[in-house]
Amino acid sequence: MVTHTRNWCSAFNPSKCTHTAVRSEHTVNTHPEQWAAISSTRGATGGSGHFKFLLVSHESVLCFVPVGGCKADWRPSNSPKLIDLMDYPVPGIGTYEDFNTIDWVREKSKDRDRHREITNKSKHSTVALLFSISDAFSGWLLMLLIGLMSGALAGGIDIAAHWMTDLKEGVCLNGFWFNHEHCCWASNETTFQERDKCPQWKTWAELMVGVSEGSVNVLNHFMYVSWALLFAFLAVILVRAFAPYACGSGIPEIKTILSGFIIRGYLGKWTLIIKTITLVLAVSSGLSLGKEGPLVHVACCCANILCHFFTKYRRNEAKRREVLSAASAVGVSVAFGAPIGGVLFSLEEVSYYFPLKTLWRSFFAALVAAFTLRSINPFGNSRLVLFYVEFHTPWHLLELIPFVLLGIFGGLWGAFFIHANIAWCRLRKNTRLGHYPVIEVLVVTLLTALLAFPIEYTRMSSSELISELFNDCGLLDSSKLCDYSGNSGGTSGSVNATAANGLGARLAGPGLYTAMWQLALALVFKMLITVATFGIKVPSGLFIPSIAVGAIAGRLLGVGMEQLAVHNHDRKIFRGWCSPGADCITPGLYAMVGAAACLGGVTRMTVSLVVIMFELTGGLEYIVPLMAATMTSKWVADALSRESIYEAHIRLNGYPFLEAKEEFPHKTLATDVMRPRQSDPPLSVLTQSGMSVEEVERLIADTTYSGFPVVISQQSQRLVGFVLRRDLVISLENARRHQEGVVSVSAVLFTECGPPASPSAPPAVKLHNILDLSPFTVTVHTPMEIVVDIFRKLGLRQCLVIQNGRLLGIITKKDILKHMAQMANRDPESILFN
Amino acid sequence: MVTHTRNWCSAFNPSKCTHTAVRSEHTVNTHPEQWAAISSTRGATGGSGHFKFLLVSHESVLCFVPVGGCKADWRPSNSPKLIDLMDYPVPGIGTYEDFNTIDWVREKSKDRDRHREITNKSKHSTVALLFSISDAFSGWLLMLLIGLMSGALAGGIDIAAHWMTDLKEGVCLNGFWFNHEHCCWASNETTFQERDKCPQWKTWAELMVGVSEGSVNVLNHFMYVSWALLFAFLAVILVRAFAPYACGSGIPEIKTILSGFIIRGYLGKWTLIIKTITLVLAVSSGLSLGKEGPLVHVACCCANILCHFFTKYRRNEAKRREVLSAASAVGVSVAFGAPIGGVLFSLEEVSYYFPLKTLWRSFFAALVAAFTLRSINPFGNSRLVLFYVEFHTPWHLLELIPFVLLGIFGGLWGAFFIHANIAWCRLRKNTRLGHYPVIEVLVVTLLTALLAFPIEYTRMSSSELISELFNDCGLLDSSKLCDYSGNSGGTSGSVNATAANGLGARLAGPGLYTAMWQLALALVFKMLITVATFGIKVPSGLFIPSIAVGAIAGRLLGVGMEQLAVHNHDRKIFRGWCSPGADCITPGLYAMVGAAACLGGVTRMTVSLVVIMFELTGGLEYIVPLMAATMTSKWVADALSRESIYEAHIRLNGYPFLEAKEEFPHKTLATDVMRPRQSDPPLSVLTQSGMSVEEVERLIADTTYSGFPVVISQQSQRLVGFVLRRDLVISLENARRHQEGVVSVSAVLFTECGPPASPSAPPAVKLHNILDLSPFTVTVHTPMEIVVDIFRKLGLRQCLVIQNGRLLGIITKKDILKHMAQMANRDPESILFN
Repeated sequence: MVTHTRNWCSAFNPSKCTHTAVRSEHTVNTHPEQWAAISSTRGATGGSGHFKFLLVSHESVLCFVPVGGCKADWRPSNSPKLIDLMDYPVPGIGTYEDFNTIDWVREKSKDRDRHREITNKSKHSTVALLFSISDAFSGWLLMLLIGLMSGALAGGIDIAAHWMTDLKEGVCLNGFWFNHEHCCWASNETTFQERDKCPQWKTWAELMVGVSEGSVNVLNHFMYVSWALLFAFLAVILVRAFAPYACGSGIPEIKTILSGFIIRGYLGKWTLIIKTITLVLAVSSGLSLGKEGPLVHVACCCANILCHFFTKYRRNEAKRREVLSAASAVGVSVAFGAPIGGVLFSLEEVSYYFPLKTLWRSFFAALVAAFTLRSINPFGNSRLVLFYVEFHTPWHLLELIPFVLLGIFGGLWGAFFIHANIAWCRLRKNTRLGHYPVIEVLVVTLLTALLAFPIEYTRMSSSELISELFNDCGLLDSSKLCDYSGNSGGTSGSVNATAANGLGARLAGPGLYTAMWQLALALVFKMLITVATFGIKVPSGLFIPSIAVGAIAGRLLGVGMEQLAVHNHDRKIFRGWCSPGADCITPGLYAMVGAAACLGGVTRMTVSLVVIMFELTGGLEYIVPLMAATMTSKWVADALSRESIYEAHIRLNGYPFLEAKEEFPHKTLATDVMRPRQSDPPLSVLTQSGMSVEEVERLIADTTYSGFPVVISQQSQRLVGFVLRRDLVISLENARRHQEGVVSVSAVLFTECGPPASPSAPPAVKLHNILDLSPFTVTVHTPMEIVVDIFRKLGLRQCLVIQNGRLLGIITKKDILKHMAQMANRDPESILFN
Repeated sequence: MVTHTRNWCSAFNPSKCTHTAVRSEHTVNTHPEQWAAISSTRGATGGSGHFKFLLVSHESVLCFVPVGGCKADWRPSNSPKLIDLMDYPVPGIGTYEDFNTIDWVREKSKDRDRHREITNKSKHSTVALLFSISDAFSGWLLMLLIGLMSGALAGGIDIAAHWMTDLKEGVCLNGFWFNHEHCCWASNETTFQERDKCPQWKTWAELMVGVSEGSVNVLNHFMYVSWALLFAFLAVILVRAFAPYACGSGIPEIKTILSGFIIRGYLGKWTLIIKTITLVLAVSSGLSLGKEGPLVHVACCCANILCHFFTKYRRNEAKRREVLSAASAVGVSVAFGAPIGGVLFSLEEVSYYFPLKTLWRSFFAALVAAFTLRSINPFGNSRLVLFYVEFHTPWHLLELIPFVLLGIFGGLWGAFFIHANIAWCRLRKNTRLGHYPVIEVLVVTLLTALLAFPIEYTRMSSSELISELFNDCGLLDSSKLCDYSGNSGGTSGSVNATAANGLGARLAGPGLYTAMWQLALALVFKMLITVATFGIKVPSGLFIPSIAVGAIAGRLLGVGMEQLAVHNHDRKIFRGWCSPGADCITPGLYAMVGAAACLGGVTRMTVSLVVIMFELTGGLEYIVPLMAATMTSKWVADALSRESIYEAHIRLNGYPFLEAKEEFPHKTLATDVMRPRQSDPPLSVLTQSGMSVEEVERLIADTTYSGFPVVISQQSQRLVGFVLRRDLVISLENARRHQEGVVSVSAVLFTECGPPASPSAPPAVKLHNILDLSPFTVTVHTPMEIVVDIFRKLGLRQCLVIQNGRLLGIITKKDILKHMAQMANRDPESILFN
């Protein structure tokens, strides 16, 4: 009597019974007639009575395959790798706990099985074919949605941040929802020259009646500080109350997640909502932070949420990570308007597993996002890019010397920043300072606002500052930075004289001198305040602060070079370089090169950084200076410390992240790293048969390991497979609850056919379907560098160590990280998670 | 008495004896006093008499470590992976034979050991420190040299090809070394309008006196065909005589080499010289081929030759391949003036192992090459790019429909081309056609020259044609393609009327209609002749022919769309789209989109293609049309056949190439693929002891396997390690020649301490230092998809299959490829090499 009717095997092909994944093993009572019928169609041999069968079912077709697992020539086809865990009857198997590392190989196998199933089905019916096609295109649809959503959010953030930044200074009489620039656009009286000055825009002091002339500035400063404090307070309170994961830049955590770690809620909807809101607040509060890094986090949240609508991505951690890789490209794409740079950023800086298919999809998503952002047009200038620059003067080969100097400065700044910031964060972590995040944020905001207001260049938002520094002085520019003699500072009186005078007209005017010392002060201020800012409990990126520091330094050097050239234009060196009557040095280019150098020093980006900058300028002309500075900056910074700021933060937080770029420089063997060490108790193993439920449960209770190797017997220690703790716990609980007659002395079998049991014994718990029959193994002699390579490239969680067929030990990702920490003279206990 | 003085261990650190790679094992006779001295310094215990020691020597320091290899707790540290094979006394060990696949893991280990050695040494002396620094920078220097050399060669090829192409039509009286354009530049009378017409440039017919008016054209045609035949003949003769590897595009072979295959001479100096010369000849002969693919080969030859000057790269096959990956980026960079596109091309299309460090270096080399090329300025216009285009009109959303149509055309063309070309090449391979390569080349050249001359668009070189097709008609354009009514065809009479009339002026004139049918003829001609051309025995790339086909199709559709819009500009659909008085459709953009679609269909490039095109146009504006067409083209082509033209040629040639992009769709296990199969004789294994030299030599003679597993004994079949055939042969020969007393019955030992031998027995041959103690293993249950993944990601040559510690079989790369061929219903014997 066939008693089983549940359909587990959904990809069943009756004509190829033996090739189908077998889902369960059953003892079937057959009458002789029934058995004859079965054996004639299936080719099985045997008589009536109790038979062991593998029961394979598909919809209403049942297929019996005689159990042959004990014969030597039987070719097993029920490796758990092949089982489609989606439809698995025991819920929870194949999932992960929070703060654990996924098994990439298992996840990719699951996805391949799923794909294979859909492909097989699609050959049989039109509906299934359509489903298969829609499944194939669902990845593209998802990318489109991520692009649209991230682009729209980025546009919203830009507009809101712009408005709220201006709100600190004043309000528009035409409508409070206009920002300063829009307010003056709307006003008809505005001319091109004075687009920032119009009667509709009132500072807070102007709005109040009866304010004396002298106290206007004080009142404006007071309002500026008050708004800043209010925004910062709201931001930190919202983060603390609703989404603690929303703080920081998010890139270290996203790197860790992409490498296979699980942090539940880090990319959830609350994080998205709160991060979006608090990002606007934090940026508007005038703190020295940027929105570029957090935009990557926002894009990843969008991607993660949208993944929930697609089974393919919801149920598979590896596939989801491919989407997240693309989303980080989208984040950079919307942050800088640089889709190619975004893709390369994802490839170079963030991603762990980045197949070519993802490259192409990332590019698509990044483009969609960039165009969505452009159609929202938050900057009001139809430009895709954040800082549009256009230089007209070619650079001279000799200028490579100052560019390399900027690279050295960038490298030094990067190393200093990382060192100081990590020291500060460690202080926060280890002392009572960390208990008062709200007060810390308010103090930093207060300091920033108080000190920033007096100087024009720190008062304006960092983005505006950078735009101004990158800008090449045109004839009509009225800023102090373009106050060259002949250009009567501030207004555009005798501009035509400038063009006529040529080189002579590039002599610095008094406005430029003022700008210079103000910029020098701003540089020191930005450098110090950024160290304290990155890491406080509000969303904070450091692309913009780094760029700002670099741009200030670059502009200072650029103006210096320019004045040097002007004052020495008769010297031999400048004569060949600067043809009279033409500009020969572009300080804006220096600012740009400095920005790239500083950003490179902090993040250690290389190609992606140069490509982002290339997309900003749009010409290959200036790639060589950028490249020279970036290379120098990376070399200098790497010579001082190997880690980028993101890796340093990953290490600070103890995440289990195996850096793909870092070489493993030591000459140890697997045997030196594996556990158990010589002094430890022997490895906890399960035997494939002969253990009772109670014994297994005791082993689980006594240890905290995430998985156990299964061996033939304690004596031989010959490896059979590996079973994960979580799967084991769930299966045993499930057996105790649902399988009849399971008691503590029931045998636990990891084989398909255990040793003959006495008839009175309680039924055995069969667990061979949660057993991984193909665990990764290395020998004791394998050099650790190769083991590390295997872990990185295949995305393993653990690896068993054998010698001549005997199991000797186990190496987990955490063991490797601890070993590496030890080798680098760091505290191996700093690795917190597995 | 210490008898050994040879220095083998060069990275020896006396303070860490046990951590040093042990190089040899010796029996040392010590007097009790000597031993006491040794044991007191080294911590060893024991008495006097015969002792077994591991002898570790470095320069003049000797270190004795008591042999503990037989004790259970001894931790072996002499895996052959750790041995620096560079200084190895037996020459040849660690090298590869021609047409074999390298072991990436071994090569990378070698490099790490080398690096470690240099780093260790650098701590001890300043000279070594300087050497270490110069070693670290040698990679960058190499990249610089590759960039300079490739850029210079590409410039030379461009100039020479340009001149020789023009030589077919005529000669310059001012000097025969001027090409047509330069000749007319030099002439003062030339105006901007007629820069191709000047009295100094004479066609061949004009040079000859007494040629009648009617026979001018015939004579010119005759000269054109003669020159073409001469060039083609020279090219094929040179290729056959000096460098047979110089034919074809080279990209399939470079892909295979980069994946780890060895083809000696493929990237040698003769190939470089002959390929450079014959490439110029082949391009000039007017055949339907391009120089872009071969330029990648040329750049790789440069890289390979330059590698010989750097020990780091000369001696390491894996490191060399990193450099070759960068060189292929350089090739594309100089071919299109697109450095970023080149890097992505290398990443996406060519490379196998592409670490991030290589990405950055590739980018550097690509930039250097691009700037070298620009400073040579072969196009005479200071442009970096091959086809510089600048469009002025934005595209409309509805235009995506024709763009997608172009994508479909591109996909169909790609699939057709691959199918037809492979069929033709197979015919050439399998019939007598392949025996007459010179005649084949001459026939194809003759056909091309005869048919191409009458039509202007096929007579001009493909690059010129593409430039003209991409070009947006400006006001001063005098070509037939820009002959719109109002523009009196050919000369620039009433051009200003065009601008005034706006849309109306875009009505096609008679010249345009002529151009249309000529282009249609050219399309058919190019499509057919390219199929026959790609694969003949001259250097031939197919980027340019594919682009030409696409550009013609695109231009035809573009002009069609334009005329549709002009004739129906009052219809609702066009009214919102084309504002009156402005151009609304750019046929040049259609040509560009068509070019991308066709190139994408043939090569299946995606991101790199779009980025190359982006670098040509320099604006993000047109990325969306390009992307739409490329995506469609890839989908259509992939639906018809999965392989790109390069993969198809790799398969045609039977190279062992494991495609990284292709999914392994089958559900087989390692046990189904491993050898020996059930019907085969058992696996040939060596035992770790107990075999004589004669037995081992017989096994080598009887089999052709590239390596043998070493097991504990024939009974237990428990795996010890793996030894390569080549290493075994060399070591045995070496032992027979140099080791005293080795005869056929001498024992061969793969262990450090063999079973006790009788004193009369001849000395044993100890081979444990060529034994790989950490071979890769999988279990019989491992799904093949995971095995394939391991092979791809780690770059393995072979992998052993075990079950419960017993060795059952072996899987080589060739086995996998054969299995995949079988699964895809192809002939598994088509895989020729291992």
